Amino acid sequence: MLAPLRVGIAGLGTVGGSVLRRLVAQRALLAQRTGRDITVTAVSARDRAKPRDLDLADLHWFDDPVAMAKSDEIDLFVELIGGSEGPAKAAVEAALQSGKPVVTANKALLAHHGMALARLAEERHAALAFEASVAGGIPIVKTLREGLAGNQVERVQGILNGTCNYILTRMEDEGLAFADCLAEAQRLGYAEADPTFDVDGFDTAHKLAILATLAFGVALDIESLHIEGIRAITPADLKAADELGYRIKLLGIAQRVGTRIDGRVHPTMVPKTSALAQVGGVINAVTVFADAVRELTLIGPGAGGEATASAVVADVADIARGVRSAPLGLPVAVLEQADTLPLRDHAGGYYIRLSVRDTPGAVAAIAARMAERSISFESVVQRHPPRRDPGSSGTVPVVLVTYRTVESALQTALDAVVADGYIAEAPQVIRIERE
Amino acid sequence: MLAPLRVGIAGLGTVGGSVLRRLVAQRALLAQRTGRDITVTAVSARDRAKPRDLDLADLHWFDDPVAMAKSDEIDLFVELIGGSEGPAKAAVEAALQSGKPVVTANKALLAHHGMALARLAEERHAALAFEASVAGGIPIVKTLREGLAGNQVERVQGILNGTCNYILTRMEDEGLAFADCLAEAQRLGYAEADPTFDVDGFDTAHKLAILATLAFGVALDIESLHIEGIRAITPADLKAADELGYRIKLLGIAQRVGTRIDGRVHPTMVPKTSALAQVGGVINAVTVFADAVRELTLIGPGAGGEATASAVVADVADIARGVRSAPLGLPVAVLEQADTLPLRDHAGGYYIRLSVRDTPGAVAAIAARMAERSISFESVVQRHPPRRDPGSSGTVPVVLVTYRTVESALQTALDAVVADGYIAEAPQVIRIERE
Repeated sequence: MLAPLRVGIAGLGTVGGSVLRRLVAQRALLAQRTGRDITVTAVSARDRAKPRDLDLADLHWFDDPVAMAKSDEIDLFVELIGGSEGPAKAAVEAALQSGKPVVTANKALLAHHGMALARLAEERHAALAFEASVAGGIPIVKTLREGLAGNQVERVQGILNGTCNYILTRMEDEGLAFADCLAEAQRLGYAEADPTFDVDGFDTAHKLAILATLAFGVALDIESLHIEGIRAITPADLKAADELGYRIKLLGIAQRVGTRIDGRVHPTMVPKTSALAQVGGVINAVTVFADAVRELTLIGPGAGGEATASAVVADVADIARGVRSAPLGLPVAVLEQADTLPLRDHAGGYYIRLSVRDTPGAVAAIAARMAERSISFESVVQRHPPRRDPGSSGTVPVVLVTYRTVESALQTALDAVVADGYIAEAPQVIRIERE
Repeated sequence: MLAPLRVGIAGLGTVGGSVLRRLVAQRALLAQRTGRDITVTAVSARDRAKPRDLDLADLHWFDDPVAMAKSDEIDLFVELIGGSEGPAKAAVEAALQSGKPVVTANKALLAHHGMALARLAEERHAALAFEASVAGGIPIVKTLREGLAGNQVERVQGILNGTCNYILTRMEDEGLAFADCLAEAQRLGYAEADPTFDVDGFDTAHKLAILATLAFGVALDIESLHIEGIRAITPADLKAADELGYRIKLLGIAQRVGTRIDGRVHPTMVPKTSALAQVGGVINAVTVFADAVRELTLIGPGAGGEATASAVVADVADIARGVRSAPLGLPVAVLEQADTLPLRDHAGGYYIRLSVRDTPGAVAAIAARMAERSISFESVVQRHPPRRDPGSSGTVPVVLVTYRTVESALQTALDAVVADGYIAEAPQVIRIERE
């Protein structure tokens, strides 16, 4: 049998604690599964005195994660500190620099420095594993990197942020406004006090950047993604979507369009019959479209200490087994510098909700503006609110669903509609993905 | 770079052809992904003269797969012959015997000889990989063996046979009888001329036996499974299920119950809101319940040349990468000889459809028989058919849904009901899984 694999864990928050407990409790089983004894020998966290429900007595304590990363007491460095800069980055670099494999759950670190870290890992022949950084307990990194190795991936899309999916599910189920659901998510611990990172789509974008690199063999580039969050979604949109046979999900979507990569994060209408539409609450899901498997969907927990620990421990087990893979699926040197498809060139169906002034000829004028840009409609629903409705205030809601249209044409047409003065609010536009 | 991995493929049917084409077309990409050149050098099939849309010019041809398995011309043997005995078994044994890794899609071979083959593979330090043997293109073997390595699996259940799921979906959608849908499945090539292996549940059982071993670390034992197929399901059952909020799926289910393993294949009522209920047509799906991830569902193609080739090529790529795992997840020597939970000890909800003679007191007498065994009901639906209905013929359909009940108690009660003579046909009983 091989010498034991000595693990150091940096960061003892919820995930770090779960990983430590799990590695200890399942030590015998993991040794049988991997053929190698895995033993936690060292830990590092900010405050040694902090009360923790963990037995740290036999472990070497490091105040400085970088010192632990460099230490001869460990063979593998687990980074659960978080943050794209500072000690997390310094410690991961130090571990790789000294030839030690690294397991991390840090999506921000990966999204911003993944290329440089992968290059360093390759140079030092050290593994860099990050299953936990995308979609928590769902083994999507392994699936893309290994399970679909024989496929050409065409598209990957997913519900990658549990906070947003929880909020949208509650809004849909109970007709509540965004702000109310956000407040409830915060009360339940599903959303941070500053929810920007989640609800404005940045968290999803970090994860999507990683998935796109694994799926298409392209350089990791979060800057090229179009990012929109869910703040603008209203109960009226969810109701209209329901009537049209759709649900609204915040999706991260990346696909090849010719030689270009189309990568975007935005609220998306998906058919109620699709696998992603069924996914409610804080659950995550990813669908991969590829030439051999056609369509593969994975659904599971996207966050939480235990689910994230499941992914971290699986990465540790793979390293114990001696798995060697290029961290980003392909060597950094051969990752393609693909062009980005600008959003204005995106083609698809669109849902448009307009608040039209109740003036003779308004709808006809809007339709004419659309026709000028060759935009045609799959459905047009105009509902006069009851005259006695105090909220109607002289406007009529009109919901349009377009056939396949190019975004720039739609935007030009809508600019003209706004300039014509027939609508009382900025148009609400939600992209539709029918697959 | 390592020496090229020379692959021999035995069996050039739909899957074998797809594997060959895919390994050739994606040779450069696979070399980058795995760090090793993978080259097909030899093939074997029954009839060399058979017209095939494959370029075999540069490949060494073997009439005898055993000779190819032993040959120095290959480093890895891919078995796509099929069948649990005969040349497939002989060739796999010969390859492992000579220390060559084996990739196979052969569920019957695994289900019947998996223990002996895994033991041989371990002795010879050769990989034995079989992702394609369960659920086609869904990477469930990798997920259980590697992705969930840090979990204790509690339960695994799935739709593992596309033929049955296609038939049940059609029956449900169009109110058709089993025989009509089977005939259509045969016409479309989704079912064999002799459909027994699929529709009577044996195919699902083969796959379930493999999953149970990987999930629980128990000896592979197909004989211990309870197996029922879908022939007895009627449109009336599907309609009643729909009204009760369920769908009927042929599931393979394996779970730990105390120290015992409960393994069974049977038509199952699952809530319409569950992930498995959404899976229609020939698609497969597997849900794993485990302590860390709680619930993980994978949905994808369960059959077809390209999807199966996807799994075969992934296994080949793993071997090229140097992955070493015990074939059955744990070394054969430590696999547990678990006791089986007999079906009579199964506890759960039951759907019961009775054709009750239209006699005063019949329903009361039936209820009394159930009460004797402490069986209570979540719902009782008795619908008098219209008196003019020529098919009613003096019987009334009664649908009962029980609370959690032990199978032996239910069976005893139903035996008494039958003996009382109040029902006109054998009772229809379908187990319910609410999770």
